[in-house]
Amino acid sequence: MSAAEGPPVDAGRVIADLRELDRRTGGPDGAQRVCWGEDWRRAREFLTELLAELGLEPERDEAGNFWAKLEGESEPALAVGSHLDSVPDGGWLDGALGVMAGVGVLRAWATSGRQPPRSVFLVDWADEEGARFGRSLFGSSAFSGTLDPDRVRRLRDSEGRELPQVLGANGVDLDRVLQSGERRETLAAYLELHIEQGPVTEAEGVPVAAVQGCAGVERHRLRFTGQASHAGTTPMDQRRDAGLAAAEAALRIEGVAERNHGVATTGALALRPGIPTAVAGEAELMVDLRNPDADSLATMLDEALELAKLAAAKHRCGLENELVWRIEPIPFDEPLVSLAQETVADTGGRDEPMSSGALHDAAEVARVVPAAMLFVPSIGGISHAKEEDTSEADLAAGIEAFGALANRALPLGR
Amino acid sequence: MSAAEGPPVDAGRVIADLRELDRRTGGPDGAQRVCWGEDWRRAREFLTELLAELGLEPERDEAGNFWAKLEGESEPALAVGSHLDSVPDGGWLDGALGVMAGVGVLRAWATSGRQPPRSVFLVDWADEEGARFGRSLFGSSAFSGTLDPDRVRRLRDSEGRELPQVLGANGVDLDRVLQSGERRETLAAYLELHIEQGPVTEAEGVPVAAVQGCAGVERHRLRFTGQASHAGTTPMDQRRDAGLAAAEAALRIEGVAERNHGVATTGALALRPGIPTAVAGEAELMVDLRNPDADSLATMLDEALELAKLAAAKHRCGLENELVWRIEPIPFDEPLVSLAQETVADTGGRDEPMSSGALHDAAEVARVVPAAMLFVPSIGGISHAKEEDTSEADLAAGIEAFGALANRALPLGR
Repeated sequence: MSAAEGPPVDAGRVIADLRELDRRTGGPDGAQRVCWGEDWRRAREFLTELLAELGLEPERDEAGNFWAKLEGESEPALAVGSHLDSVPDGGWLDGALGVMAGVGVLRAWATSGRQPPRSVFLVDWADEEGARFGRSLFGSSAFSGTLDPDRVRRLRDSEGRELPQVLGANGVDLDRVLQSGERRETLAAYLELHIEQGPVTEAEGVPVAAVQGCAGVERHRLRFTGQASHAGTTPMDQRRDAGLAAAEAALRIEGVAERNHGVATTGALALRPGIPTAVAGEAELMVDLRNPDADSLATMLDEALELAKLAAAKHRCGLENELVWRIEPIPFDEPLVSLAQETVADTGGRDEPMSSGALHDAAEVARVVPAAMLFVPSIGGISHAKEEDTSEADLAAGIEAFGALANRALPLGR
Repeated sequence: MSAAEGPPVDAGRVIADLRELDRRTGGPDGAQRVCWGEDWRRAREFLTELLAELGLEPERDEAGNFWAKLEGESEPALAVGSHLDSVPDGGWLDGALGVMAGVGVLRAWATSGRQPPRSVFLVDWADEEGARFGRSLFGSSAFSGTLDPDRVRRLRDSEGRELPQVLGANGVDLDRVLQSGERRETLAAYLELHIEQGPVTEAEGVPVAAVQGCAGVERHRLRFTGQASHAGTTPMDQRRDAGLAAAEAALRIEGVAERNHGVATTGALALRPGIPTAVAGEAELMVDLRNPDADSLATMLDEALELAKLAAAKHRCGLENELVWRIEPIPFDEPLVSLAQETVADTGGRDEPMSSGALHDAAEVARVVPAAMLFVPSIGGISHAKEEDTSEADLAAGIEAFGALANRALPLGR
């Protein structure tokens, strides 16, 4: 049997499963499947029901990731999946699409009367969003080994509860999460279907795209220090306005992105004292730089810091820079990306693979297991909001392409 | 007796009174004489003690203003004073200087064995700072008649207590505060000594300056509306970044001030969602424009709004403008300002009168009674902070000049 001859996924059923999940765990304000909470557990109960229909019993690993295995003719296995957890007031598709499409792949084989050429795992990664404790990609980074338990041990949620305690209530022991990585050896490849969460594919009018990797991120806090003073009595030429220094830096940093084919965002700015009647004496500007190319990302950071220095000097302010978070660009597996691109081309999708500006579990997995992704369009580029949506035609095209990609990948070894 | 021949004020005693007031109502974090509170009442008790030394008994008007009268040879009277209330963690001189200097004027005459050519009132205006309910110049605007009781009736302090209730606990009936204006007819003129609260006189090295009026203020809220979107997945050319629109507006509005010889401040900016990983979909920028000239202030507002529109358009954002507060420029009485300038010139002070960018009780009083002010330097231009200070030499020079000015004004009729 050739790869393309595997059983097709029933996209209509996958979409129906997504709607049922939304009915069970969403509401007027959107999806509420925040990880380690009640609605998230309810989502996994629903997933368990769907797997039971196929005669499969899931198991959880030490990091809280959720696995179900359909036995095939050989090992190691192909893994398909994504994450069921959402941000608060999130969308119905972010993560859930990939999990339900993965169930669709298992269902296609389980109901075909045939055994897949290698085993297939469905995986639902724990706490992709980091919505509660601020640490994204929790389960997948435990799996890949990049999570350092000691660096998250003191994290608290907004109600002051500690991460280890909340994990414990969900049956996860923080000191054992890295043991989830023992499963790496059982996997030949990992495939994930996700919504784009951006406007590119919709603007291009393509229903599906192959993804070649995730952009690297440099996230820095720039602290401009001037002198707070009275708005009425301080002449313009005697001011040291930290707010204007930050404003000038933000505008200049926009140009850094354009020059280097990346993106740059200054979405958080805090002024102190932050009142209309005082010149700001201090301003904290968060700068988030992303680029799929490591050298270009480094250039962006150099340029951004240089421009911020100039902006600070122009307004006679001091400047400190604090690294908040960084991750290098993570390319996906070239042969798998090629396979994904062939599949996408066959279904009228995007002409070439794209980079993901958002991070995904696949990026963590790609460190240790060959991985690739497919994207479907997000209407208006909107995500992490109840308005998040994808046309039914694009959803169906994406789910079917993902099924075809899984069938093409199944015969390949590691 | 000529004007200049009145008894001089004992500046050393005034400074000693200020230090004693600070000892009784201040602490390690600065002055705590927030109006209608315990420390403020304690300050007035101290003032009552000082007046009792002179055989004077103060009375309160319907707005909570505090008056003490030294009988002179004629009416109407000259009033001298300022305010004892402070912001929380405030400075020792803001307001208190003018009240204690006023006591100094009364003391000079009361201990001289002579009667002043007209009666002299000391006044301590209630709630100049508006620190508790956000309504500045409470007592003086009740006196001038511009306070509308219905516009402040629903104000609450940070602990949720309503203004009428707090006034009531201080013996003030909100529905009767405008009756304090009946005293206008008894006044020929009003003089106030205050710290500059800005850096101008210190930078110029002058110990005292005449003030020709208070700048007008236009305070507006500019709301830029773009589209919140993902920092990683939204290409630069598809963004509608409200934060960058606001940043660009702030920088352009700085130039408006320079062109029109006023000041412009953008000290408060709120981004939404306001997180590092999202392009800001909404930005609220507070713009505070000040100019002593009404036409120039109007030009500043026109230019600022036009530039904000251009900034919004450049970043493909919408713009709404909401008036938060405005007050027209209030010039002081020309003959009184001339008299103040002559006095200042005689004491080595500033060559010409300056405008005040901050508001003062004198601005409200000037609407209905001829008024003028003197400023002494603020070290580093700092005010509304425990670091607020003026050199002892400048304090003494300002207090003595104020006494001389009062003596020159006393013979003048209305």
